[in-house]
Amino acid sequence: MKSYRKVLVFNTKTRRAFINITHDCEQALEESGIKEGLLLCNPMHITASVFINDNETGLHEDYERFLERIAPEKPHDQYRHNTGTFEDNADAHIKRQLMGREVVVAVSEGKLDFGTWEQIFYGEFDGKRSKRVLIKIIGD
Amino acid sequence: MKSYRKVLVFNTKTRRAFINITHDCEQALEESGIKEGLLLCNPMHITASVFINDNETGLHEDYERFLERIAPEKPHDQYRHNTGTFEDNADAHIKRQLMGREVVVAVSEGKLDFGTWEQIFYGEFDGKRSKRVLIKIIGD
Amino acid sequence: MKSYRKVLVFNTKTRRAFINITHDCEQALEESGIKEGLLLCNPMHITASVFINDNETGLHEDYERFLERIAPEKPHDQYRHNTGTFEDNADAHIKRQLMGREVVVAVSEGKLDFGTWEQIFYGEFDGKRSKRVLIKIIGD
Repeated sequence: MKSYRKVLVFNTKTRRAFINITHDCEQALEESGIKEGLLLCNPMHITASVFINDNETGLHEDYERFLERIAPEKPHDQYRHNTGTFEDNADAHIKRQLMGREVVVAVSEGKLDFGTWEQIFYGEFDGKRSKRVLIKIIGD
Repeated sequence: MKSYRKVLVFNTKTRRAFINITHDCEQALEESGIKEGLLLCNPMHITASVFINDNETGLHEDYERFLERIAPEKPHDQYRHNTGTFEDNADAHIKRQLMGREVVVAVSEGKLDFGTWEQIFYGEFDGKRSKRVLIKIIGD
Repeated sequence: MKSYRKVLVFNTKTRRAFINITHDCEQALEESGIKEGLLLCNPMHITASVFINDNETGLHEDYERFLERIAPEKPHDQYRHNTGTFEDNADAHIKRQLMGREVVVAVSEGKLDFGTWEQIFYGEFDGKRSKRVLIKIIGD
């Protein structure tokens, strides 16, 4: 069994952002030389998500509005995580749970085994600082 | 390390539906000959989920009502994905995120390593067309 | 390829609880002898979650309040799962979907390949009875 590890780094200009990382994952897979196996991709932080969905900016605005509606950033003091610590990012911890932490993707014949519209995104909910995304691939 | 790949196809009569695919996954596992490893199952589409929960129709109605309450299908024009494209399925992209994309299941002694009530479901949120579900198994 | 399986058992005093199981997962990994691979951790029940987030009690209260706000336990008869069966735990099945079923964690150089703040939690939504959590590790 082979394994391969790679870390990506993102520093978004805005608190919240969606970044297409499909190509980064494809490149890591090519570097790994693995033809059959599984690729895991997850943020190494707990206020961000990696998820698979559509590369369509209108939909990303819908995600932003949906998440702000059910777990709004402000007022900060509605959350005990914010009032009990020096943090202001309780909403980001909730948004990350709703969008999910990680994706596991099948690797078949040396490619990400995807349907037509599947794309991998990094979902940042508390950005404006350097944050890491882990890619781990195992297989043969 | 062995690997095995299988694709299921579903075409639901209704826009939204839950289909029990536990037996399909068990059959794929038997075909694979793999005794110890991991089984990944995910839709190859971005408006559907694969998830593990209870085989109980009342609960499935509760999921339907819950999802329609927090991310309703209509009016379609409440979503920018729908107004900016020719699509009407923004709600389905949101519902899929809430229910999750994929499941990863342990394979032990040639069986899905499940508790008593665990069953695998395909959750369709934008059906009435042919859609694929991927099963990928790796192990020995 | 090596594989390792371990089952944890929890019996919470309250209906809902969050338990840090990071150390249990680290111990299982050490027992496995696996240095490179993937660790899967999931409840063997469908009214509980395993998730990765912050070890901060204020945040856990925020999760409790958020989940009760969007999928409240009571009144029980708002859910068809409860009125159609002898169950009272439809809310727990919904909460489990929102928080997710499982985590898949990279294993690198014999350690859980985690960022600074990542911790693994068992999220119980229908406790006060004995429930199992599965750890499955594959790799070399």
